[in-house]
Amino acid sequence: MRISQLSAETGVPIPTIKYYLREGLLPSGEQTSATRAEYGEAHVRRLRLIRALLEVGRLPIASIAKVLAAVDDEELSMHRVLGTAHYAIAPAPAPRPDGEEWRRARAEADRLISGLGWRTEPWAPALDELAQALYALARLGMPMDEEALRPYARAAETLVEHEFGVLPLDGPRETAVETLVIGTVMHGRVLDVLRRLAHESASARFFGIEPGDDGDKAHTTP
Amino acid sequence: MRISQLSAETGVPIPTIKYYLREGLLPSGEQTSATRAEYGEAHVRRLRLIRALLEVGRLPIASIAKVLAAVDDEELSMHRVLGTAHYAIAPAPAPRPDGEEWRRARAEADRLISGLGWRTEPWAPALDELAQALYALARLGMPMDEEALRPYARAAETLVEHEFGVLPLDGPRETAVETLVIGTVMHGRVLDVLRRLAHESASARFFGIEPGDDGDKAHTTP
Repeated sequence: MRISQLSAETGVPIPTIKYYLREGLLPSGEQTSATRAEYGEAHVRRLRLIRALLEVGRLPIASIAKVLAAVDDEELSMHRVLGTAHYAIAPAPAPRPDGEEWRRARAEADRLISGLGWRTEPWAPALDELAQALYALARLGMPMDEEALRPYARAAETLVEHEFGVLPLDGPRETAVETLVIGTVMHGRVLDVLRRLAHESASARFFGIEPGDDGDKAHTTP
Repeated sequence: MRISQLSAETGVPIPTIKYYLREGLLPSGEQTSATRAEYGEAHVRRLRLIRALLEVGRLPIASIAKVLAAVDDEELSMHRVLGTAHYAIAPAPAPRPDGEEWRRARAEADRLISGLGWRTEPWAPALDELAQALYALARLGMPMDEEALRPYARAAETLVEHEFGVLPLDGPRETAVETLVIGTVMHGRVLDVLRRLAHESASARFFGIEPGDDGDKAHTTP
């Protein structure tokens, strides 16, 4: 198909497609004349993947480029591709606090994760993120210890095991790798969104709010 | 304490504290002379809350201001304050796709949530986010139906019920409201971070990676 059809098929404007081509996010079409290129189903699929990572995953273009380069690099193991996706999802690190209190929080994060029997690299960005959350919660007088963390850890573990259980490993590498990346990014978003909806629902139930009720009467009635 | 002590106590630089005062995020201190104000423990706590929402919750300053105004408004029910926090956490809406396919995705999101028996307002921003994720997944050929969504929904439900179970409702409104807001934002982050760590760990196990192993050998061995 021509670029105009590719645009119609995916809803991505032509100038945006050209930008992705220039940035190497989308492989070139097959040049059929000096001014014409042909695109195929692989381009449609790749464009949808870019848009999903952008709009649902909220990844910056530079991170998407890194993830796609890893997906396309057939020398790279699945575990490494997934690692690249994890680094890309991790938000830019907040400035680390200094001093003893921070070092204790980071050591505590390491201890909690190895206590769960999880195998992660010590430089995984999520370990710093966990430490930062624990540090902030402790300073707010709401510390989370092993016990408090456990329900979250177990929920995460169960969901992730479920995801690996349905990974299509009998097909081509490309399918498995794409599924892994999409799962990492999109299912993480789905969980986050569902948690917020569950929270709203639990709050309505807990404080006895009826749908449409503004709830102002209820602020002291549990 | 003086502003310099407040800064030392919280690690927040004086110009930043002054900025929060100007923006109304932090209530003024008690003016003891034309050039001097006294701050107390409430200011320390509020500063820590601002930093937690900023650095761990990654909320923009404008959203933090809205959440804090809701926390401080004693006329507002707990449910309403929580709603404000939910709106503040929701990322800026991505442009909605047009047309029939999108409307179906949004109707499907509504159907799934009411099928779970959850009580949410139809304008909850997370419903649009859920629809967007479902829409993108369907276009990628990885649709999530009720069955596929259920484990995530159940995990979310269990964690949220647990959180409401430990809410300190016997103390002052301020404590309960702060705990609710901190929990919504911070425990959501903790869950997201733990899910990524669990994912990394499951991947290492699944693909047979040893710690420190670069894993390049393993890309075809499940």
